[in-house]
Amino acid sequence: MTASISTSLDGYVAGPNDSPENPLGDGGERLHEWIYDLESWRAQHGLEGGETNEDDEIVAELSENVGAVVMGRRMFSNDEGPWGDDPFEGHWGADPPFGVPVFVLTHHAREPLEMDGGTTFTFVTDGLESAVEHAKEAAGDADVSIAGGANTIQQSLEAGLLDELQIHLVPVLLGDGIRLFERSDGEHVELERTRVVESPDVTHLRYRVSR
Amino acid sequence: MTASISTSLDGYVAGPNDSPENPLGDGGERLHEWIYDLESWRAQHGLEGGETNEDDEIVAELSENVGAVVMGRRMFSNDEGPWGDDPFEGHWGADPPFGVPVFVLTHHAREPLEMDGGTTFTFVTDGLESAVEHAKEAAGDADVSIAGGANTIQQSLEAGLLDELQIHLVPVLLGDGIRLFERSDGEHVELERTRVVESPDVTHLRYRVSR
Repeated sequence: MTASISTSLDGYVAGPNDSPENPLGDGGERLHEWIYDLESWRAQHGLEGGETNEDDEIVAELSENVGAVVMGRRMFSNDEGPWGDDPFEGHWGADPPFGVPVFVLTHHAREPLEMDGGTTFTFVTDGLESAVEHAKEAAGDADVSIAGGANTIQQSLEAGLLDELQIHLVPVLLGDGIRLFERSDGEHVELERTRVVESPDVTHLRYRVSR
Repeated sequence: MTASISTSLDGYVAGPNDSPENPLGDGGERLHEWIYDLESWRAQHGLEGGETNEDDEIVAELSENVGAVVMGRRMFSNDEGPWGDDPFEGHWGADPPFGVPVFVLTHHAREPLEMDGGTTFTFVTDGLESAVEHAKEAAGDADVSIAGGANTIQQSLEAGLLDELQIHLVPVLLGDGIRLFERSDGEHVELERTRVVESPDVTHLRYRVSR
């Protein structure tokens, strides 16, 4: 199972003050600037045109052979608590870019959502391992990817569920925000770097998680 | 002015529980494993032999043309408070590897130290800018390097004193320790990646600080 995420050099995946209206936090869009002009990203978002370069190849690769996705609640809707009578359908829009079953970690049950473009959201209340099980079942022979956020990725690492981690390292210091890696107890996790791709805007570092 | 430091992928420059007897903290030596067998490092520490490879070239480069060094107190001696009657000469030993004047940031005055091998320690109590001034004066036409630690490097960045930052990124997640980048207010700092060198043990990422 793989995860990939954009981070600042000081290790933030979003700026401070993230909210449903401001999901990447203040200044957080800086972390995704490298992606917005790429053909693959634009295609996933129903937009035409875009650049084809080494960054674009990496973005295309991210969804290649992905049959299902696991995502944390914060990344789905950036809200908290029971879903209420007219639950928010998440900030990914009516036609989310995933195009496959997405399993959302939440403490509060709700009915699945079927969106346009092949994305479905199923809400899993009994933990990460369960969500991963569901995702693997849905993916069949294809891969499962952890879309994020930081907390879900860190949980996956600590649970020994992650095989590969890719960091899109953006050359900026944000100073504050949501950290990819919060402090944790537990053993060191050894990694093996399997690839580095440099582009003008970002450095892609890919690691295999050693066992 | 340049700084370089080894960090874990989760951004720690030392493990937890650092102290004068345990300056890199629990597990912190993992971050320097890449360096101990290198010829240049060994030569700086009065040891013979060692490997010559791309890591070694980078280590040699770090002290090339460096005329003076600035260092934080924690990196000098990892203790606190007034120096006392028989002040600790720091944990760098009698023949420290610097071989040039080193200016140590401290709140508490003490007399300079002249060590073997060309290293002198001068204790600067009136702040980072002052230490940098002294270092530039001592260095003459040569460069000044910020040896560390994390806090001093972060202060240098925030004060706009750093031109170049190099991170030796070690493929491990430590989980806890001293962060290179603590949370801070202030503007984002834009960086420009100027070099990436990959070796089996570490990834060297060099950045210019944009102005």
